[in-house]
Amino acid sequence: MAGAAGRGGCHTIRGAQIKELLQSKRNVLFDCDGVIWNGETAVTGAPEVVRLLKQQGKRVFFVTNNCTRPRENYVQKFSRLGFTDVAEEDIFSSAYCSAAYLRDVARVQGKVFVIGCYGVQKELLNAGVTMVEEDDDGPDVSIYDCPLDPDVKAVLVGYDEKFNFLKLAKACCYLRNSECLFLATDPDPWHPLRGGRVTPGSGSLTAALETASNRKATVIGKPGRFMFECIAGQFNLDPEQSLMVGDRLETDVLFGTNCGLSTMLTLTGVSTLKEAEEYKGSDSPEKKDSVPDYVVESITDFLEALEE
Amino acid sequence: MAGAAGRGGCHTIRGAQIKELLQSKRNVLFDCDGVIWNGETAVTGAPEVVRLLKQQGKRVFFVTNNCTRPRENYVQKFSRLGFTDVAEEDIFSSAYCSAAYLRDVARVQGKVFVIGCYGVQKELLNAGVTMVEEDDDGPDVSIYDCPLDPDVKAVLVGYDEKFNFLKLAKACCYLRNSECLFLATDPDPWHPLRGGRVTPGSGSLTAALETASNRKATVIGKPGRFMFECIAGQFNLDPEQSLMVGDRLETDVLFGTNCGLSTMLTLTGVSTLKEAEEYKGSDSPEKKDSVPDYVVESITDFLEALEE
Repeated sequence: MAGAAGRGGCHTIRGAQIKELLQSKRNVLFDCDGVIWNGETAVTGAPEVVRLLKQQGKRVFFVTNNCTRPRENYVQKFSRLGFTDVAEEDIFSSAYCSAAYLRDVARVQGKVFVIGCYGVQKELLNAGVTMVEEDDDGPDVSIYDCPLDPDVKAVLVGYDEKFNFLKLAKACCYLRNSECLFLATDPDPWHPLRGGRVTPGSGSLTAALETASNRKATVIGKPGRFMFECIAGQFNLDPEQSLMVGDRLETDVLFGTNCGLSTMLTLTGVSTLKEAEEYKGSDSPEKKDSVPDYVVESITDFLEALEE
Repeated sequence: MAGAAGRGGCHTIRGAQIKELLQSKRNVLFDCDGVIWNGETAVTGAPEVVRLLKQQGKRVFFVTNNCTRPRENYVQKFSRLGFTDVAEEDIFSSAYCSAAYLRDVARVQGKVFVIGCYGVQKELLNAGVTMVEEDDDGPDVSIYDCPLDPDVKAVLVGYDEKFNFLKLAKACCYLRNSECLFLATDPDPWHPLRGGRVTPGSGSLTAALETASNRKATVIGKPGRFMFECIAGQFNLDPEQSLMVGDRLETDVLFGTNCGLSTMLTLTGVSTLKEAEEYKGSDSPEKKDSVPDYVVESITDFLEALEE
């Protein structure tokens, strides 16, 4: 079977091989950014790929470390880009899963101090998790004398374009209490923007807080197993029946390996085939686990396999 | 001799032992925060200790990772706290030494993008290093479309209470150019404030940028050797004739060890005797090198040795 034969093999596959692989799987998990779309542009054929997979009885899930949108906005984006059949239940973002973790696993009794964007805040609100109200701190408010909320029992860090020194310092003070939980939505260090620019990811902001607090965050997103457990818990997934398709070796592929899934790298995003091949020759177990079983140029390549 | 006998011994010493140690040294290097003063309060007797050391022919230097003040403001602070005989030339801050590095070692031809406070900016100005003019970025300016200066040839990160996402993102974009230098004033992860609060240090902000840029900063401050090289270059210091007195094991004591100085931990600041003793039993070479030769409760204990 293609799945077993290919483990960590970094095999570039096409048409009939993709068909054989998909026939051996019931579930397909896609990362979004760099896989399904780039910014506001869908990868060519991606809406049709998702439609055909569903039509052929596959269960399709979207597993993204991108915490900027709540599930309901992801549904809107899918629809806007031509995906006609994606529902909220199919979408597992690091924001949604962080809220699930706080509510169902940590069962936080108290408030959460959030460094994060609208997507994070909205998912926590949807989950009924209580947050510290965001102050509109003026320029004269400082860590020397600002109020700190004694009910804070967890700090959650995600992507936040309004990140600033005072938020970092407050979080740092909350984490002085060793009983205060320290969570991060995802470990992504940076994200590509247009024109060769980059933007710092949640992992960058988390690194600042880890250093300042001398603590390590519990990271919810890929490559950790928790997002797969969220999906598996709701949909009773068998890892051996599941394929993870992503564009980042250290998050998507490693996540797949960590969860016992077959893994596929698609080259429409961040990581390159060269990097994957270098990792194959590496001595580091983590890098070896980040080598995909399969490689495709683009999920456009699924079309040929699905239409035959 | 006390100096050789005590190497990494973590010996608590008093009166006659301190006297013997000081007699064997020509130069005494003091850290400032937690050693000479805490906030705006001098450690008891510290001004007298400095005066007596100088009177007895010692050369006294202040070696601080604190980059918030330029040298001229340190002189004012010393004076305000009762130190009557401290001159600019005696003070080596991470801001001063970062400026010296940029001018004399890196010889940067172009502009420096600075994440840092007044102390850093003023020292660069004093050294004639060209900086990117600080924009007063409004709330609508974002990394997606803000201007980036093509003349930036170095990024310097120091303590910055005005640190924000946009500064981090801009720095990250500049560092995409592998020829752009990446410097940090110091590695301090956090600093204690009154009332049990803490504030993130330069090391925290640097960690964010290191993660987002996938690069490592060249760190100017302790425990790196560069600050000692700055002093030694100007004053021709013999390491064996020099004692480093500090309150942080991982910066001050390790710095002393790295530079071949005798080292003394004073317990008026961050690190504790318990931590020093734990490090003594550690397998980590870095922790072993962070064990002081000597320990005093406070530099107040020097008075008895100096007045006898």
